[in-house]
Amino acid sequence: MASVRKELPKGFRWAAVKAGIKASGRPDLAVAVADTAATAAVMFTKNQVVAAPIIVGREFMTATGGRVRAVVVNAGNANCATGKAGLDAAYATCKSAAEIFECPQNEVFPSSTGIIGVPLPVEKLLAGLPIAAAGLGSRPADAEAFAKAIMTTDTKLKVSQGCVEDGANSVHIFGTCKGAGMIGPQLGPPHATMLVYLFTDLAIGAEDLRGLLGPAVESSFNSISVDGDTSTNDTVLLLASGASSVNWDAASTAVRSSFTKELQRVCDELAHAVIDDGEGATHVVTLDITSARSNTEAKTIAKSIAHSPLCKTAWSSADPNWGRLLAAAGYSGVEFDLEKVRITIEGLPVFENGVRAEAFDEAATHAVMREREYTISIDMGQGDGSCRFLTCDLTVEYVHINADYST
Amino acid sequence: MASVRKELPKGFRWAAVKAGIKASGRPDLAVAVADTAATAAVMFTKNQVVAAPIIVGREFMTATGGRVRAVVVNAGNANCATGKAGLDAAYATCKSAAEIFECPQNEVFPSSTGIIGVPLPVEKLLAGLPIAAAGLGSRPADAEAFAKAIMTTDTKLKVSQGCVEDGANSVHIFGTCKGAGMIGPQLGPPHATMLVYLFTDLAIGAEDLRGLLGPAVESSFNSISVDGDTSTNDTVLLLASGASSVNWDAASTAVRSSFTKELQRVCDELAHAVIDDGEGATHVVTLDITSARSNTEAKTIAKSIAHSPLCKTAWSSADPNWGRLLAAAGYSGVEFDLEKVRITIEGLPVFENGVRAEAFDEAATHAVMREREYTISIDMGQGDGSCRFLTCDLTVEYVHINADYST
Repeated sequence: MASVRKELPKGFRWAAVKAGIKASGRPDLAVAVADTAATAAVMFTKNQVVAAPIIVGREFMTATGGRVRAVVVNAGNANCATGKAGLDAAYATCKSAAEIFECPQNEVFPSSTGIIGVPLPVEKLLAGLPIAAAGLGSRPADAEAFAKAIMTTDTKLKVSQGCVEDGANSVHIFGTCKGAGMIGPQLGPPHATMLVYLFTDLAIGAEDLRGLLGPAVESSFNSISVDGDTSTNDTVLLLASGASSVNWDAASTAVRSSFTKELQRVCDELAHAVIDDGEGATHVVTLDITSARSNTEAKTIAKSIAHSPLCKTAWSSADPNWGRLLAAAGYSGVEFDLEKVRITIEGLPVFENGVRAEAFDEAATHAVMREREYTISIDMGQGDGSCRFLTCDLTVEYVHINADYST
Repeated sequence: MASVRKELPKGFRWAAVKAGIKASGRPDLAVAVADTAATAAVMFTKNQVVAAPIIVGREFMTATGGRVRAVVVNAGNANCATGKAGLDAAYATCKSAAEIFECPQNEVFPSSTGIIGVPLPVEKLLAGLPIAAAGLGSRPADAEAFAKAIMTTDTKLKVSQGCVEDGANSVHIFGTCKGAGMIGPQLGPPHATMLVYLFTDLAIGAEDLRGLLGPAVESSFNSISVDGDTSTNDTVLLLASGASSVNWDAASTAVRSSFTKELQRVCDELAHAVIDDGEGATHVVTLDITSARSNTEAKTIAKSIAHSPLCKTAWSSADPNWGRLLAAAGYSGVEFDLEKVRITIEGLPVFENGVRAEAFDEAATHAVMREREYTISIDMGQGDGSCRFLTCDLTVEYVHINADYST
């Protein structure tokens, strides 16, 4: 994924500074500011345990009905399971940002990502905020600095851009996210450590914006998994500055449809980027479940396979061990008739009529599974429910990354 | 776990031969025969996809009401997802054994373990059966031969024995099992690739025997997990020959209680042996969940932690990263109040009152986690539900074992 291109949505400025929270010493405090309060829609993790910034963000979004002037993100510390001190730190950060940007405190949106349970050094954030404010800009380099500062174990910059034309006018979308491990998002309406920030200059009301975000998230960020570990901090925030000349209420059906598709494309591209950068991943696997009894059951089967250590390790060696796929589908809790199930890998027949496909070619199947990306299609033979789910393999490198404790 | 000791239950004989199914060339066909039909209770996997021997075993156990003369187990091939040919192979094996042991076909209990989806070379089983029959014996070496032949990726022999005195009489229990990977058993009444065979010479009816097996399995084999991958072949079979002079109906409450406890101890010991031999495992972790709203919710929390790649990799490096425990509990689907949760590791305080315990000593906690076995206790502060769940860490070796496909 390349760097940020020109043509960013109007009405926003970005900046990042080194606040000294990341052990690496890299930039770790990212700030995005709307020229005037932006319309906002948000989805938070459904994890029962949520970080302090999620609690504060929920409260503020409810109070404002969906209005954000400034986004303040720190990486290197999740500010989760940090008790009252953690909440105080999140409030203090918002209060300081509100004073700097001259807005109500509840128009500041806080986010954190990093280790759980370690007190957040809030004084470092407070010291960094004025410096970040002084450095705000609307150039690609500014947006890119924001995108880089939110990274933790990520190895790649994750950005995506979109544009919709409406006659002589145009609306732009800029999205960025971070996340490589503890990725098994389950996002619900006003409820990551996947953090996603989407910016557009469309003029739109909060309710319509929420209506656009839900479906876009369901088939993108809610349909991916690296390790299935749903984070305490996952957040997807969509801000609309209204600085373009395109207004949702006045827009034609064609423009509305184009914007919806472009938002989906940006979300899909970012979700793909998360899996492509999955900790230790060497293969990106699309699970295409079709003919299930419902979309929900299709996703349940996909998740069972995506979280199976046996399936994931087989993928790491391009092993067409389809028995593991069947076993994982079988313990998903979904009822089905094995005789009706049909499995193909990149279109190559693997399993049908209750047994290994007659045309199964182990060498050919192994060959397609050596590609970095491929699709496993499972036709359940039951109904019209379906799901496309993106996941990755489980490698020795994943274990190394997450077992790095040294005495 | 040592070899088989003397004092085996009376009324049984065991044997094993090399039928040529295991690629290693080791013994792979195990036979156990009761002198006269034994009372039998069984629990099979709840996986929707089940192997041919499970389908046949279910049918036969229903037909006989719980009566088994011979058990025929092959290792090296699961005979699962093998269609009609697989069913035919299982029936043919039972038919052949029935002729050899002169019993009804439905008194033969078939089991298979190994790779899924590869046709079972039934001619090898049929050729091996007479040789096994000729070698049957009731010495410890015979029972041990049975226990060794059922092994696949196991590195250790798994056997356990028990004895209950009833005045001058005594009842014996011999149990053996196999399993190291694809271990996340969910066993239900007449519904494994964990295979467990329990033999006793108690005289007891089938209904009473089933009543004993259920609870013994629930807190042992149904409360362990290596990788969470519930197999298509899991089976726990308990046979009672009645060859001792102790009869359940006539036994005192004290003797009944002693037998129930001894059966539980044998199941617990075998379940522990499975985790201790978990693929690549370097740590055996007991999750002791207490004060949950129900036993079911306690087990849901335990399983969520036991299956979390982030928790499991942290254990591999003895990392007291308790935030991962909280995150996994948080996405389990169980509701709880973080402020009331209390976590200790081997009794050392880790988390309480919503934050890292004041007395948390990272070095000391890391030290206890370097032991091969330790307990993580989580008090949910809600009710009186509890669960003790046994699991292991996720290591580079697990990935190597399960990603061994070579071109």
